[in-house]
Amino acid sequence: MHHASDILLTLFIVFVAAQIGGEIAQRLKLPGVVGEIAAGCIVGPSVLGWITPDQIAVGTPLDVLAEIGVVLLLFAVGLETRLEDLKRVGKVAFLVGVLGVIVPFAMGGTWAHASGFDWGKSLFVAAAFVATSAGITARVLQELNALQRTESKVILGAAVIDDILAMLLLGVVVSLQGGQGVNPVHLLTVMGSAVAFIAVIGWGGSRVMRWNSGWLDKPHSQHSALAIVLALCLGLAYVSTLFGLAAIIGAFLAGMIASETRQQHTLEKQVQPLLALLTPFFFVITGSKIDLGQLGNASALMALGVVTLIAIVSKLVGGFLGSMALGRRSATIVGFGMVPRGEVGVVIASLGLAAGVFSDRMYAIIVAMSLLTAMVTPPVLAWLLRRWPEPARKEA
Amino acid sequence: MHHASDILLTLFIVFVAAQIGGEIAQRLKLPGVVGEIAAGCIVGPSVLGWITPDQIAVGTPLDVLAEIGVVLLLFAVGLETRLEDLKRVGKVAFLVGVLGVIVPFAMGGTWAHASGFDWGKSLFVAAAFVATSAGITARVLQELNALQRTESKVILGAAVIDDILAMLLLGVVVSLQGGQGVNPVHLLTVMGSAVAFIAVIGWGGSRVMRWNSGWLDKPHSQHSALAIVLALCLGLAYVSTLFGLAAIIGAFLAGMIASETRQQHTLEKQVQPLLALLTPFFFVITGSKIDLGQLGNASALMALGVVTLIAIVSKLVGGFLGSMALGRRSATIVGFGMVPRGEVGVVIASLGLAAGVFSDRMYAIIVAMSLLTAMVTPPVLAWLLRRWPEPARKEA
Repeated sequence: MHHASDILLTLFIVFVAAQIGGEIAQRLKLPGVVGEIAAGCIVGPSVLGWITPDQIAVGTPLDVLAEIGVVLLLFAVGLETRLEDLKRVGKVAFLVGVLGVIVPFAMGGTWAHASGFDWGKSLFVAAAFVATSAGITARVLQELNALQRTESKVILGAAVIDDILAMLLLGVVVSLQGGQGVNPVHLLTVMGSAVAFIAVIGWGGSRVMRWNSGWLDKPHSQHSALAIVLALCLGLAYVSTLFGLAAIIGAFLAGMIASETRQQHTLEKQVQPLLALLTPFFFVITGSKIDLGQLGNASALMALGVVTLIAIVSKLVGGFLGSMALGRRSATIVGFGMVPRGEVGVVIASLGLAAGVFSDRMYAIIVAMSLLTAMVTPPVLAWLLRRWPEPARKEA
Repeated sequence: MHHASDILLTLFIVFVAAQIGGEIAQRLKLPGVVGEIAAGCIVGPSVLGWITPDQIAVGTPLDVLAEIGVVLLLFAVGLETRLEDLKRVGKVAFLVGVLGVIVPFAMGGTWAHASGFDWGKSLFVAAAFVATSAGITARVLQELNALQRTESKVILGAAVIDDILAMLLLGVVVSLQGGQGVNPVHLLTVMGSAVAFIAVIGWGGSRVMRWNSGWLDKPHSQHSALAIVLALCLGLAYVSTLFGLAAIIGAFLAGMIASETRQQHTLEKQVQPLLALLTPFFFVITGSKIDLGQLGNASALMALGVVTLIAIVSKLVGGFLGSMALGRRSATIVGFGMVPRGEVGVVIASLGLAAGVFSDRMYAIIVAMSLLTAMVTPPVLAWLLRRWPEPARKEA
């Protein structure tokens, strides 16, 4: 009779762990996500063992809930991102985004290759150095009431461009890793079809929605617009995997398309409870996959220190160089604003682990690095923003 | 790499099937739930086979999503139900609720026993005749703009009482079925602990929340109140299984407790997107479990006709007798308002199937009966409400 009770207890443990971890982190002025990952590490096999390895294996209910959680998260990020916004933030944001990808990718890849990985795997590792977490950055700026500053707009715009580039890069790297090695024709095909998919869906979908989104309210159901965009989200998440891209890219595109509808504001509100229920599963289960045993020796801790330093410095340099037009102070703020990695870095690490590219130790190091960058940034950013209250407004 | 894509496709199929089925049903002036169940039957093994039996087995991701869906649904029903409301609708609603349980239970049990079930199983079958769907009834009255009529208030109040009694009955019947047979001491223990659990949690929880619910907003998280009541929902759903009750009883209690908070209105809104995403999984998977092959012969169709007739007549008689004080016309409206079974009947049938009490044929018949009562009621109720526009207001 009570087949449901075991899974209910597990769901309860995961959800409550996320709330407690998130709350403690926020009281320590850290992003909640840091606490959720840490809580997962604690309830997971590494420490308490309340969640066992077979409960978080691929295809289990918890794994699927985590997948739905991260798909919805990227959908929500897309929902706050219009094609128009990407254009408006202009040259500086684009430069920051591009340099913020190139510098960490180059430095990360060089380090990985120097550490003994072949180039194929090194590129995958490098990809984990790339993606700024738009979510964490935005949440930090919001908490500091700094969303209207020029640097904030540049950071957010760049984070979006950065996100897209990182996802593209991820798609390319994942496909490359899919056994074929570095094949220029395959590389071009992968890149071309991925770009075409993103362009057609993103541009076409946005056009359609901007032209007419009244039909979303046509169905009799009270939440028809939400239901339709959620179906779009699940559908595009699936289709993007057919193009060799991660499911989250499709979800992000679905969100970006939905951001053009006249129901965008309502949808943004309605997605929040879904995130509140489901994203904790992603972060807690992510954390529960960290094998602390892998970090329990000097060489691993040394590697973690090096990786984290590279992650911070490379992003800072990329962001600084990209936004020098704003002046040295603003460029420093932008650079630090780009540092937190958060969910996307963790997603890439998870993919790397699932694909067998990352060792458990490398996975633990990359996830811990994402965690550390997300923990280091908020206090530094707060200090810089208070120290230089008036930004140099070189842009209108 | 693409381990996630198969499950994403399945999620997409289930979700879209629910939307299409629900939309068609609503255009045919039927409750959406009818269409969702029918859609599940169509995409399931009986017809298209897009969902295979091993994808909906106990403990699979889809099964867990369905479980979460129904837990959230009953949580939402609880969220619209205050202890206070249960008292205010008074004697008539109570009488309708009680007689609306006793008459169908007695008639259903008698029929089941006459059909060859032993008394233990007959009581389980009888329980499936009992529960009025508060959700369906409320949705129908809302569509007809009749929520302010006296009969509507009685129907809603009675549906809530009916729901609680049905759940209690279900808990008792499930425990009885748990191998022990009819043992008076066990019966009293089961009943006593179930009643005590419900009373302590329901009454105590409501008192605590009414006294002070400000602490729900204390945590730093933006959706802290929602997160806390969802944790309560998962926790009580689990604990209620420890008392031999169904998980949905705990979820309902959690909702009822949360209805006493000052955040109740916000919570009610926030729960809607969760229902929109997750309840379709319950109804579609419910439908996909119907084995049409079991209904494909004259004797089964005959049995379905008899069961549906008993279900309608017994509820009508119980509701009519309970509300005679309102006059013959209003009593007829109330009686018909109590007819739809919907989700709770389906839940009981699912439990019966999982427990091995129901044969596939009996499951198919009970689910089809729930479907038919939900399909028959709306047109009849609409006709009666239009025919007798002014209700006899014997109550203030």
